[in-house]
Amino acid sequence: MSHTTAALIKVLAFDVFGTVVDWRSSVIAEGERLGEAKNLTIDWTAFADAWRAVYRPSLDRVQKGELPWTKLDVLHRMSLEEILRQFKIDGLSEAEKDHFNRVWHRLKPWPDSVSGLQRLKTRFVITTLSNGNLSLLTNMAKHAGLPWDCILSAENARHYKPDREIYLLIPELFDLKPEEVMLVAAHENDLQSAHKHGLRTAFVHRPLEHGPGKASARPPAERYDFVAKDFLDLADQVGA
Amino acid sequence: MSHTTAALIKVLAFDVFGTVVDWRSSVIAEGERLGEAKNLTIDWTAFADAWRAVYRPSLDRVQKGELPWTKLDVLHRMSLEEILRQFKIDGLSEAEKDHFNRVWHRLKPWPDSVSGLQRLKTRFVITTLSNGNLSLLTNMAKHAGLPWDCILSAENARHYKPDREIYLLIPELFDLKPEEVMLVAAHENDLQSAHKHGLRTAFVHRPLEHGPGKASARPPAERYDFVAKDFLDLADQVGA
Repeated sequence: MSHTTAALIKVLAFDVFGTVVDWRSSVIAEGERLGEAKNLTIDWTAFADAWRAVYRPSLDRVQKGELPWTKLDVLHRMSLEEILRQFKIDGLSEAEKDHFNRVWHRLKPWPDSVSGLQRLKTRFVITTLSNGNLSLLTNMAKHAGLPWDCILSAENARHYKPDREIYLLIPELFDLKPEEVMLVAAHENDLQSAHKHGLRTAFVHRPLEHGPGKASARPPAERYDFVAKDFLDLADQVGA
Repeated sequence: MSHTTAALIKVLAFDVFGTVVDWRSSVIAEGERLGEAKNLTIDWTAFADAWRAVYRPSLDRVQKGELPWTKLDVLHRMSLEEILRQFKIDGLSEAEKDHFNRVWHRLKPWPDSVSGLQRLKTRFVITTLSNGNLSLLTNMAKHAGLPWDCILSAENARHYKPDREIYLLIPELFDLKPEEVMLVAAHENDLQSAHKHGLRTAFVHRPLEHGPGKASARPPAERYDFVAKDFLDLADQVGA
């Protein structure tokens, strides 16, 4: 079954935050360095989780029309201001805040991400399909060595997930049927939205995304076209 | 002067057809293979030149509003039908025409393109900035081994060159001043439009683009920020 399905697929589209890169450890590590440089005593784990917790609500403001189309860098910066106030951090210059906000451009890949993508790239077109803006994803790829064939984003569709426009972007751009495109993601809500719009789905388990002991359960194999423990396992399953 | 200018530049944006890839030889070579397979006696050099000659007029139809936004693959296909009639070729199946139309996805790079881009990529973000659609440019990069950091196109702006929207796309996406972006192109009209909108400019001489003996003159060095004989020479001049 798996190889038959794989033979029909032309493009693999990857969710990025949590699926390809470990946003939480990366934000904590840069926070700790900033804290040392500025003599701040902050729980950077709590800071990272608080910053990420306002991510989805910030996208919702765009989707509800409370904000016009706004790229993720700008939403991250608005959220950063809020979280800095919450943690009573007020000694950062504009340049320091701008640099720290761009930690999302410098997130570290999971250990299997680069080698897994290199293998998957031999058989499929591999692209991002992320809420991150194009410059964020481009800088991240350059920083982390992610070998994308192209970089596509909510910014192309001017719609955030789970709007249908982002899931139909790749079929439209590549003149493919939705079932010739597969979303690879660590998040079941993203995969279920992709499935609703006709895309194939591959779940990749990232049990450490939210820190130790916070793993969501690995879904049953029959729920998605593929359920893999990492990108290398996915490459094995699709024969890449 | 050169190194000082280079130090201010963050992104190199490349024109593609003629600048990075040798469209003419590639179309002629695939035409000859098609001719052998189908027993056609055609002057494929004349065919390639005729197909390319209707490229600019087809973009003009979109820019004048005679056609709604139409991606280049579709314009190429409309032109192909016209040129096939002109050369009295009528024995091709839909699949054969579709495959031949996608020769533009399989164009060969100039000999210095891949190694030059590899060097330039160590110092700058390198991206396409082409009238080609995103899937065309993605497939071409995969086929030819072009190591782009990202792929941007008229399709992002839904405006063809020389509309201002395409020249301002990268400053907007990357939050840069226009003078932090440099267009690299073999065509003076493209560079002059880029300059008008504040971008830096690098001319790269491609004397064989239109075939032997059809070279345009190399412009004087002072006309652009850089005038180079190929991508390796440009890498030398910018210190990459």
